[in-house]
Amino acid sequence: MQLRIPGPTPCPPQILQAMGGQMMNHRGPEFAGFLSSITDRLKQVFQTRSDVFLLTASGTGGMESAIVNTLSPGDKVLSVSNGFFGDRFGDIAVAYGADVIRLGFEWGKPVDPDAVTGALRANRDIRATLVVHNETSTGVTNDLGRISTVIKASGSLLLVDAISSLGCINVPVDSWHCDVVVTGSQKGWMVPPGLAMVSVSEEAWKAHAQAKMPRCYWDFSLIRDASQKGQTPWTPGISVCYALDAALDLMLSEGLEGIFLRHARLGRKTRDGIKALGLSVFPDEHCASDTVTAASGSAEVDLAKLIRVLREQHQVIVAGGMGGLSGKIFRIGHLGYVDDDDIESFLQALDKAIPQAKKT
Amino acid sequence: MQLRIPGPTPCPPQILQAMGGQMMNHRGPEFAGFLSSITDRLKQVFQTRSDVFLLTASGTGGMESAIVNTLSPGDKVLSVSNGFFGDRFGDIAVAYGADVIRLGFEWGKPVDPDAVTGALRANRDIRATLVVHNETSTGVTNDLGRISTVIKASGSLLLVDAISSLGCINVPVDSWHCDVVVTGSQKGWMVPPGLAMVSVSEEAWKAHAQAKMPRCYWDFSLIRDASQKGQTPWTPGISVCYALDAALDLMLSEGLEGIFLRHARLGRKTRDGIKALGLSVFPDEHCASDTVTAASGSAEVDLAKLIRVLREQHQVIVAGGMGGLSGKIFRIGHLGYVDDDDIESFLQALDKAIPQAKKT
Repeated sequence: MQLRIPGPTPCPPQILQAMGGQMMNHRGPEFAGFLSSITDRLKQVFQTRSDVFLLTASGTGGMESAIVNTLSPGDKVLSVSNGFFGDRFGDIAVAYGADVIRLGFEWGKPVDPDAVTGALRANRDIRATLVVHNETSTGVTNDLGRISTVIKASGSLLLVDAISSLGCINVPVDSWHCDVVVTGSQKGWMVPPGLAMVSVSEEAWKAHAQAKMPRCYWDFSLIRDASQKGQTPWTPGISVCYALDAALDLMLSEGLEGIFLRHARLGRKTRDGIKALGLSVFPDEHCASDTVTAASGSAEVDLAKLIRVLREQHQVIVAGGMGGLSGKIFRIGHLGYVDDDDIESFLQALDKAIPQAKKT
Repeated sequence: MQLRIPGPTPCPPQILQAMGGQMMNHRGPEFAGFLSSITDRLKQVFQTRSDVFLLTASGTGGMESAIVNTLSPGDKVLSVSNGFFGDRFGDIAVAYGADVIRLGFEWGKPVDPDAVTGALRANRDIRATLVVHNETSTGVTNDLGRISTVIKASGSLLLVDAISSLGCINVPVDSWHCDVVVTGSQKGWMVPPGLAMVSVSEEAWKAHAQAKMPRCYWDFSLIRDASQKGQTPWTPGISVCYALDAALDLMLSEGLEGIFLRHARLGRKTRDGIKALGLSVFPDEHCASDTVTAASGSAEVDLAKLIRVLREQHQVIVAGGMGGLSGKIFRIGHLGYVDDDDIESFLQALDKAIPQAKKT
């Protein structure tokens, strides 16, 4: 079975083996050394000198933590969205009582930094801006570097969902002045789901000190206090930590530059491959993601049937469209533990599946 | 290394092996069947016909979910506590703006149902009562059956932390009319940490429909909607689900009655053993837990040293005291994957360690 969804991603054998490690005392000296070593290496991948924390949760839990730790009910928040996960980020802020201004872009198009500037100028009291770096639902990578420049010029906090980009595509957290950045173990990290990883800037800490949204499980203060004792406040997903430990060794031995180049190469190979088979890339190609490709069908291909044929006859699992894109696109994950051979064998399967999935 | 802490508990080999399973699509048909099979068997162990959900979180996340899904800010809540985790349950309710009345009992003593009755009579408008069934910090099992009777007679909801009892000690969720019951994978379930399991009664659903505390990640409505499609709303900790699947097979093949008898036998063996070595059981023995024993030292034994000697010279890890009991007790976990041999070898190690840990 070839799992070509944008997460959970396949795990390499040494990471699956690490998952089978016996339990340890999460309040003992062994765990303290282990947590510190993981955190130090995470900071290298986040390219940050700020705090990086582990949460036992999915990436969505990490998004919730970014909001509830930095904001108060009634705070004005700019929710920038060009897809399903951008909308979700805004929804979480609404659930906690923020005054959310939605700046939406067509799904498949990138976020326009000038429009963000306009929204920030029209609303001078925005406390935080929510941005998805890599919109998994549409296969679009937003230009976070440029977006960050306009946001930070306005004085707003920048909260970033980098769940499907960090560790695959360049996300220099400090040089882009991102205040809270969230990612998830089951994406480019090649690790099973169960951990969200979040960075917290100095400016985010200042906001945290004033932030009144209710929180306990996500509370960065409690997490920081525990981390100073080499612990997490709540029992951590120890096995996923074992896997992340193994993954960080693999990632740092490949090197960030090597990882970014590999994802860029495989993204292009995937896009070129599907176009050669008569399908098209859903988003504008200049903003197409190097971790997930959203593919549109052609007039002859029944996409629901294609997804089924790929699974049942070719042992390849791809993801469907989300929300309004259901039935209109399918999505191919090429992040984490993936190399040229995987994309070539995927494209071979797709080549066979397309004629089997003609509309009748 | 023998891990004798009250969680994470050691995992049997077949469960560690299950943890190493490759990823699957959590939005595909395979996962739907898998989730449904896990849920059906969880209901057997919970002894409930109500909904049981998986949360990718620690047990504390489960406690937070119980509160935010059933209450509104300003609601009056009775927080019954005789230990560290009882206090934590109340703290979470405070964090979310509940009007919390604290009914505290001496640590090491059980909760007195008559005092609960008194508190409920003095405060007729209590919406929910928070109770820890098995207080892991003191090794006390509270009489949840009797406590439930008085709480349900008052019309209050009953929210239960059964994190270190469910699956080990009898917790008949339906016949005790518990509204939300929380447990965690790393306790009696013999599974690594990363999943909380919660049951939700009909009455809890009615309260949920009115409950205004902010929530997204923990939202039972979103979880129920997703479960009707055979999914979880957020990416689940798939590997821990694999392990739980294997564990449920082991547990149901032993049978609930067999599990309860084994824990009762091992609890007694542990208490008798430490007394025979000149130590004492910290709580009143009639309420001593069959999953975790809190042991007090004697005048001659330095407990901090004893814990260190056990770890460094006998490869046995026990837990210290929490909060005000730090340095005054140590705690021995005997829940989950544990049998007579384990307790005997633990007691042999303790026998050797005590003379090495004399006060100087």
